[in-house]
Amino acid sequence: MIEDPNPQRTPLSELGEFGLIERLTADLVPVHASTVVGVGDDAAVLRPDAEHDLLVSTDLLVEGVHFDLAYVPLQHLGYKAAVVNFSDMYAMGGTPTQLTVGLAVSSRFPVEALDEVYAGLRRACAQYGVDLVGGDTTSSPSGLTLAVTVLGQVAKGGAIRRSGAQATDLIVVSGDLGGAYMGLQVLEREKATFLANPNLQPDLSEYQYPIERQLKPEARKDIVELLKELDVTPTSMMDVSDGLSSELLHLTKASGLGCVVFEDKLPIDPAVLRTCEEFGIHPVTAVMNGGEDYELVFTVSLADYDKIKGNPSMTPIGHMTASDGAYLVNQGGTHVPLTAQGWKAFSA
Amino acid sequence: MIEDPNPQRTPLSELGEFGLIERLTADLVPVHASTVVGVGDDAAVLRPDAEHDLLVSTDLLVEGVHFDLAYVPLQHLGYKAAVVNFSDMYAMGGTPTQLTVGLAVSSRFPVEALDEVYAGLRRACAQYGVDLVGGDTTSSPSGLTLAVTVLGQVAKGGAIRRSGAQATDLIVVSGDLGGAYMGLQVLEREKATFLANPNLQPDLSEYQYPIERQLKPEARKDIVELLKELDVTPTSMMDVSDGLSSELLHLTKASGLGCVVFEDKLPIDPAVLRTCEEFGIHPVTAVMNGGEDYELVFTVSLADYDKIKGNPSMTPIGHMTASDGAYLVNQGGTHVPLTAQGWKAFSA
Repeated sequence: MIEDPNPQRTPLSELGEFGLIERLTADLVPVHASTVVGVGDDAAVLRPDAEHDLLVSTDLLVEGVHFDLAYVPLQHLGYKAAVVNFSDMYAMGGTPTQLTVGLAVSSRFPVEALDEVYAGLRRACAQYGVDLVGGDTTSSPSGLTLAVTVLGQVAKGGAIRRSGAQATDLIVVSGDLGGAYMGLQVLEREKATFLANPNLQPDLSEYQYPIERQLKPEARKDIVELLKELDVTPTSMMDVSDGLSSELLHLTKASGLGCVVFEDKLPIDPAVLRTCEEFGIHPVTAVMNGGEDYELVFTVSLADYDKIKGNPSMTPIGHMTASDGAYLVNQGGTHVPLTAQGWKAFSA
Repeated sequence: MIEDPNPQRTPLSELGEFGLIERLTADLVPVHASTVVGVGDDAAVLRPDAEHDLLVSTDLLVEGVHFDLAYVPLQHLGYKAAVVNFSDMYAMGGTPTQLTVGLAVSSRFPVEALDEVYAGLRRACAQYGVDLVGGDTTSSPSGLTLAVTVLGQVAKGGAIRRSGAQATDLIVVSGDLGGAYMGLQVLEREKATFLANPNLQPDLSEYQYPIERQLKPEARKDIVELLKELDVTPTSMMDVSDGLSSELLHLTKASGLGCVVFEDKLPIDPAVLRTCEEFGIHPVTAVMNGGEDYELVFTVSLADYDKIKGNPSMTPIGHMTASDGAYLVNQGGTHVPLTAQGWKAFSA
């Protein structure tokens, strides 16, 4: 990253908690009529309408676990923290509407660093039409932790659960997978190279796609809209945050079914394939266990196949089964049982 | 605290993220009809009714900043994390209904420690009639951070803002103040004593009240109900989390008014006064700058004075003024300008 050689550094203590909150949340203009009171009171006041159910989801992003500030710009961090929560709303077939942010930072961060985080949050909110309505800002003994809660709405009774899949339903994924994981590999390698020789200026242009997938993921609002246009209602849906393998195990468990997906159907971008080859990582590993792609994986009735067939944004990769197991069929035809690697959040 | 000499310690890695979440959220039974889907999908699904507005508030509790596990039992921590957010709902004149929890912990915590935190959260939810509907559990490089978001409801258009006070309105506080701060002083002193001589068994019986105010605060649900019964609608309200001085400055700023409160009217418990004397801390300092009492401070029209007069749960301490400043009148009659000390979250 190119950094300002003389950045302004205002210590957090200069503003204090209330001054900081005022600065970070200045000039927020709600776009939703349902936002009655935003930031600045004991609680935000919202007015949901009777036609919708309300969705709520919370995610934590912890420095040193979910991100490394050696290569994650703070604006991107704010953007991603918002988007991964928006993705949960789309994964229910809904739309995000409001967001609250809890931010804990050590005093090593100047005010300007928090401005950057908020700039990213605000940009994501503007991009997806979401109101930032509240939060809490506090110090931490070390590091930066972001706790984002998103509220959303979905047509009454229309939330798409993980549990609704039927045997023989097709399994479909949006976009392509494995990119975010390979972007992380590139960034980790560049960090190691930089630490070994800080004068080396890396050329990352050929890795642009996987890096962008890692640093600036987008939530698939467009897919939820497209499915409505095509008059396709998924029978179950979730987003790919922990890796496809983990998500398929969730869908099969919740629906009380099994599944079969085919290795040669998995959508992988050519730039991701090239990066996999260079790193000696099997592309299937990146797709199944990588995570953070924030694509949608969903099941549709066989009767809906014609509506999505050939659509470049959606790839059928297999189907649910009435039996118990969840399997990946490799190119030799062998059924390999799926295992959830996911984040292994506590193995470190 | 008396600890089990042989506590069971299951490493977090043994359960993994999903196993842990299943364990912590097992057997949750929603009490609200508005909770359609709780824990276990990409988002919780709620169905607010058309008669209410929705309230949302988020708070972070960070180890080493907001609590010290040397003297805060984990169950109490969970309880307090929930209650301080419930307090925000009551401070708007509303009722908490649902809660989500983000929990980041380092691997030094065994599974049983998180069981304790959740036991406290669940107990608070049961006590206040709130559904735990979702969350996120992750590792942290060090320490424990709790991010709690509470949703609540209030009669449509009936949220009590900070900004509604009128000049000449009475300022009233519930319960008594300064206890939580003095409890903290006792606990800090006992910690220092324990570190100097671990064999010393402290007798804390005479500090029971201030310690309980610090470790296990309650939110004033009863006051909101009592005000309804008395047919008193506060013109403005907030809860005392940062210290009365800070809250009065918020109320006056939001309402564009000044205020005068009288030192000899401040409600302080005799046990707190005794502790103040012992520690050489002026009781007014504990009340004005201590915080964490989670009482309600509100303004009422003079016309409502007769309805609350003599009520043991509510103490008029002063009144709003049309002028600019916020003052404490001491026993000599001097007007001392209020300053916000609050948490000084970033001064460490």
